[in-house]
Amino acid sequence: MDKIEKNLLEEIADIHEVPEGAYNIRANGKLESRNTTANIDIVTKKDKPGIDIIIKPGTVNESVHIPVILSESGLKDLVYNDFYIGEGADVTIVAGCGIHNCGDQASEHDGIHTFYIEKDAKVRYIEKHYGEGDGKGDRILNPTTVVHIAEGGYMEMETVQIKGVSSTVRTTEADLSDGASLVIHEKIMTHGEQTAETNFTVDLNGVDSSANVISRSVAKEHSKQVFNSHINGNNKCYGHTECDAIIMDAGRVEAIPSLAANHIDASLIHEAAIGKIAGDQLIKLMTLGLTEKEAEEQIVNGFLK
Amino acid sequence: MDKIEKNLLEEIADIHEVPEGAYNIRANGKLESRNTTANIDIVTKKDKPGIDIIIKPGTVNESVHIPVILSESGLKDLVYNDFYIGEGADVTIVAGCGIHNCGDQASEHDGIHTFYIEKDAKVRYIEKHYGEGDGKGDRILNPTTVVHIAEGGYMEMETVQIKGVSSTVRTTEADLSDGASLVIHEKIMTHGEQTAETNFTVDLNGVDSSANVISRSVAKEHSKQVFNSHINGNNKCYGHTECDAIIMDAGRVEAIPSLAANHIDASLIHEAAIGKIAGDQLIKLMTLGLTEKEAEEQIVNGFLK
Repeated sequence: MDKIEKNLLEEIADIHEVPEGAYNIRANGKLESRNTTANIDIVTKKDKPGIDIIIKPGTVNESVHIPVILSESGLKDLVYNDFYIGEGADVTIVAGCGIHNCGDQASEHDGIHTFYIEKDAKVRYIEKHYGEGDGKGDRILNPTTVVHIAEGGYMEMETVQIKGVSSTVRTTEADLSDGASLVIHEKIMTHGEQTAETNFTVDLNGVDSSANVISRSVAKEHSKQVFNSHINGNNKCYGHTECDAIIMDAGRVEAIPSLAANHIDASLIHEAAIGKIAGDQLIKLMTLGLTEKEAEEQIVNGFLK
Repeated sequence: MDKIEKNLLEEIADIHEVPEGAYNIRANGKLESRNTTANIDIVTKKDKPGIDIIIKPGTVNESVHIPVILSESGLKDLVYNDFYIGEGADVTIVAGCGIHNCGDQASEHDGIHTFYIEKDAKVRYIEKHYGEGDGKGDRILNPTTVVHIAEGGYMEMETVQIKGVSSTVRTTEADLSDGASLVIHEKIMTHGEQTAETNFTVDLNGVDSSANVISRSVAKEHSKQVFNSHINGNNKCYGHTECDAIIMDAGRVEAIPSLAANHIDASLIHEAAIGKIAGDQLIKLMTLGLTEKEAEEQIVNGFLK
């Protein structure tokens, strides 16, 4: 790996060389390196590009890193990754994609991730998206995440896209069985002419299933974001969705969170607020000696922390 | 007017015989009676069914009643009513439609109301919809309200549909100029197999324009409701939308409020909560001696008050 690739890896997966535990590093559409453990197997798919990540029942305190990096301009990469999380496992999965594009052609990575979370299993899933490079070519990332959670299962998703992605359509679909829970924290910042679209669909099918979807976003300059979320309460369940957005410059944000209560014991709530940084917040920081630019930066960083 | 018609009038317009001030009573697709005043003129349209209500600039403390009643089964009534509210006027307009259907055929009233609210004018608009009668025929009410508010104008809408309307699609569109305000309070209760759909679209085009849309609804038995609202912040403006719904029995509610911030100084908020009556609220009232049914009724009445 060269310096550019190593930097991408650090940005998206906080790893410097080789991560601990199981990992699968994909660079420019090819396998770069892989490690499996006694409990975590990674198998290359035969029918299409992608891998199966198979985690044995009862596996705890282990992690899997599956970063993808693209440093060649004009590459379009598509992978199907399936995650089988055995009963009672408790693991951390770190995915993410970094694109360095200094050419004129678009670079694109579309990852379709499907999770099969078995009974009482717990997954913490972290996905970071990052783009860089001074080429004119777009950096496009369209992640699709499909989540099936069995009884008592739990998934926590943290998705972060802070910088450098020209266009993204982020689709997440989940269905939850009895007692299953899903927590999603999404953070997006767009600038320049970037566009970002988020689509969440959560089916709360099981008794006492719950979902909590929290999105925080910042749209700067001429960028545009759309936040869609659909929570369907099909049983005794609890659903909450929240979308808070800061607009700056000529940034635009649209929030369309829909709730459908299809069961008498479904309890659903959503909240959204879109606006610019409050003037008094800025003034407070500026009286402490910060310039307006620095004050804004500090508020945005705090908001997305 | 017979007893049935008089009762409908009372339900929708709180009037017993003849209202004070200007009025236009429409019964079974025909003009029943009309009164104009020095400041308020009512003119029958020549090109299509409906009336023009023309209110002189500066008219204050006056009211217009324009109730519509249908007691013949199988009637489909469509009217276009245009309201011209002169500069600086301050008036109350009471509309509404009552249907008594004891036949087998559907009775339907579709009212398309357009408001031209001039500079600094204020309008309080009350619209009640009500259905009754033991026939098998549906009672259908599809009101469309289009509102244009000039600089500094203000409109407050109170729409109520409590009982007896089989199916309704309620569409409201508004555009607001500088300093204009719109407040909407909607109350809907559905039961049986009834369906209700609400569509609000508000364009906040003017500097310091504001909209506050509050919807409270109760869906009982097998009824189904959909609440759509779109607030577009196209200037320095403030928008708030709130949808609270109680579901009972097998009632279903879907809330889809969308916010679009298209301007850096647009500040938009929405909130929605859907759920059944909280158990502890019921228990509290039942310890005071109410049956469960009575306690539910009291909570619903309070919620829709």
